[in-house]
Amino acid sequence: MELITYPDRKEWAQLLKRPYVDNRAVLESVQSILNAVKQHGDEAVRSLTKKFEGFEPGQLELSSEEIKKAVLEVPEELKRAILHAKENIETFHRGQLSEVKKIETVEGISCWRKEVAIDTVGLYIPGGTAPLFSTVLMLAVPATLAGCMEIILCTPSGKDGQVHPAILFAASVTGVTRIFRTGGAQAIAAMAFGTDSIPKVDKIFGPGNQYVTAAKQLVQMQGVAIDMPAGPSEVCVLADSTADPSFVAADLLSQAEHGSDSQVLLVSNDEALIAKVKTEIEAQLEALPRKELAQKSLGNSKAILVNEHDAIDLVNAYAPEHLIISCSNADAIGERITNAGSVFIGHYSPESAGDYASGTNHTLPTNGFARAYSGVSVDSFVKKITFQKLSKEGLGRIAQTVIIMAEAEGLRAHAHAVQVRMKDEGNI
Amino acid sequence: MELITYPDRKEWAQLLKRPYVDNRAVLESVQSILNAVKQHGDEAVRSLTKKFEGFEPGQLELSSEEIKKAVLEVPEELKRAILHAKENIETFHRGQLSEVKKIETVEGISCWRKEVAIDTVGLYIPGGTAPLFSTVLMLAVPATLAGCMEIILCTPSGKDGQVHPAILFAASVTGVTRIFRTGGAQAIAAMAFGTDSIPKVDKIFGPGNQYVTAAKQLVQMQGVAIDMPAGPSEVCVLADSTADPSFVAADLLSQAEHGSDSQVLLVSNDEALIAKVKTEIEAQLEALPRKELAQKSLGNSKAILVNEHDAIDLVNAYAPEHLIISCSNADAIGERITNAGSVFIGHYSPESAGDYASGTNHTLPTNGFARAYSGVSVDSFVKKITFQKLSKEGLGRIAQTVIIMAEAEGLRAHAHAVQVRMKDEGNI
Repeated sequence: MELITYPDRKEWAQLLKRPYVDNRAVLESVQSILNAVKQHGDEAVRSLTKKFEGFEPGQLELSSEEIKKAVLEVPEELKRAILHAKENIETFHRGQLSEVKKIETVEGISCWRKEVAIDTVGLYIPGGTAPLFSTVLMLAVPATLAGCMEIILCTPSGKDGQVHPAILFAASVTGVTRIFRTGGAQAIAAMAFGTDSIPKVDKIFGPGNQYVTAAKQLVQMQGVAIDMPAGPSEVCVLADSTADPSFVAADLLSQAEHGSDSQVLLVSNDEALIAKVKTEIEAQLEALPRKELAQKSLGNSKAILVNEHDAIDLVNAYAPEHLIISCSNADAIGERITNAGSVFIGHYSPESAGDYASGTNHTLPTNGFARAYSGVSVDSFVKKITFQKLSKEGLGRIAQTVIIMAEAEGLRAHAHAVQVRMKDEGNI
Repeated sequence: MELITYPDRKEWAQLLKRPYVDNRAVLESVQSILNAVKQHGDEAVRSLTKKFEGFEPGQLELSSEEIKKAVLEVPEELKRAILHAKENIETFHRGQLSEVKKIETVEGISCWRKEVAIDTVGLYIPGGTAPLFSTVLMLAVPATLAGCMEIILCTPSGKDGQVHPAILFAASVTGVTRIFRTGGAQAIAAMAFGTDSIPKVDKIFGPGNQYVTAAKQLVQMQGVAIDMPAGPSEVCVLADSTADPSFVAADLLSQAEHGSDSQVLLVSNDEALIAKVKTEIEAQLEALPRKELAQKSLGNSKAILVNEHDAIDLVNAYAPEHLIISCSNADAIGERITNAGSVFIGHYSPESAGDYASGTNHTLPTNGFARAYSGVSVDSFVKKITFQKLSKEGLGRIAQTVIIMAEAEGLRAHAHAVQVRMKDEGNI
């Protein structure tokens, strides 16, 4: 961890910049995968899955027997943990559903918005080093609460064709309707365009490597909605002298172990605390199985010493995915946070709590996208359709306004659509 | 208008397909505009504005004197109409702000979401044949209600460097903070990357031609948020025998006059009504100044005769931007609409009402995007940040769950971030 002391505000932008990744080559090779799937459907998905995942699936879809059998392998303790997390995620996300509220903007003019579930959604769950069954909960729970009719899931299998049993358990308890064993850009392409086996979806969710990310970007250009742009995961810990260095070190490491490109930032007004955290990190690192990944990402990370006032502005300028506030006045600081994906307040609110089981969602905007994007919620699985109903009298009350504005915009027929309805009303 | 009678469900997808527009050439030329603005800033914006708009702006930003002077030219009647529309739009959109609701998912674990305004937003208002001051209201009113700090507006000037006074009036009464005279892809590039004169924004809103649309798509790939993907405007009118053919004809024409690529669809279970609407269209067309545009778009449009049950499914399959339900049971049909941008219920609810003054937003998903996207609302101008605060006891209640899940995902440090906080609690 590089220590930066009292940086000038003019240096902040440079200091907080995420590493630039040139993905043009990736976009090009992914475009050819998309084209192949668009043209050749299942056949392309099968051969690309063989090429990239080392297994050629006969049936892309998992049968219910397969799922049931796999689920039996999940240890009872893990099942209970997943169900506990699911319950809390449901409790929090249920509060995001909103009632229809009719508003009479003018007497005789009633307007309202209604949340309607997106019909068909596709969830992508990566394979690789960690079986992210927690992400299944984070996506499928709000999709089910929203009322999506079809919730499909694509995930790569191992070389033996097996999908991790815990992923299947999480999917089977959260309302996922169909599961397909394919991953990477070909899975995104299949969900975007549809194949004989895999239905075309209206919106695609979920994390992935650079190929998956590029595929999501490209299909979005072609009109398929996606959850949000992606980038490496990040945490910023804002800590004062009241913070426990061992807690802070553990939080930084829990982010660093995600991958060598993870972003970790410590912001503090206490130089002694920063030093103690560094010592703690060295000690805790030794016990980690993913030590090398963590070490590499810590190598690119920074500790910034600033005064308290600057600290909050600095954090908002960085717009971290996760922000942990380990300060005595954490509540008051929390009130002043304007750019972050998810905020953890106080010494007993580690990011891990929100990653798994407190109830909040862990699919969050990275890479500074928190300036404009929100994390996944029930909102992500609905459209809000506006409705309006006017009585003849209601229309009469805005008729002149519409006619004058339409004429001034040069849109005669817009004015006429009102006039024709008011023609027996005189002075229109 | 082509008449299609009782089409088979298997033909629907083909029938409802929007025309495919190959924009690869546009994307390429827009990419070079983006590159120029990224590299050369204001200088590039000025020279591109001269090239495409026929006026080289000295100052890109309009001065407050210029704005005040121009506003004096707006007729009082039009000012009153704009203020009336603004009031109704405010009334409807104010209802979209939501309160913070803390949820205790588990005793000792409090989670909530807070809406925080996006700091800096950029509104694009096209020039061209119609001065869209109504769109200024539709974007700036919710931006102001959300609490955005900086609301900038880019719009092309005429060859004389003047921006339409009504656009400036609408901007000045709705909280727009700065106005720049430049349009097209160079305006989008300037807002996406920032120049010496034009600030970099976090999110870009507003309609535009194919160059503007392509620029928005490309900057989105680079992480700048945009309101939604764009396509030609569309209306679908669902009408039964109780509909007044002159009303329906006027509604179809008010969409058709937008441009030759506008999409117009009439769906009815009454063949006689369709015939009467056609006759009415011919009659009303004569009086329109934009007759040629309207005629051209009507040439590509369809009237579909179906039975009542199929009608609703057909409309949902089409996912129109605007849907007018001119039927005796319009309310009941409205309840069954699942894909549409904005729905107009009953014989006295023309699209024009929502385009200008009923209070709903007119920036809506076209091109079938209503299957997954919502129209612009206050939501579009905020992020929803999640917060959580756990007591030590609260964390203790989910500790085992987090630890078991983290271990099963192979993320040791995630488990440790909980364990280190519970180390004096025994069996963790």
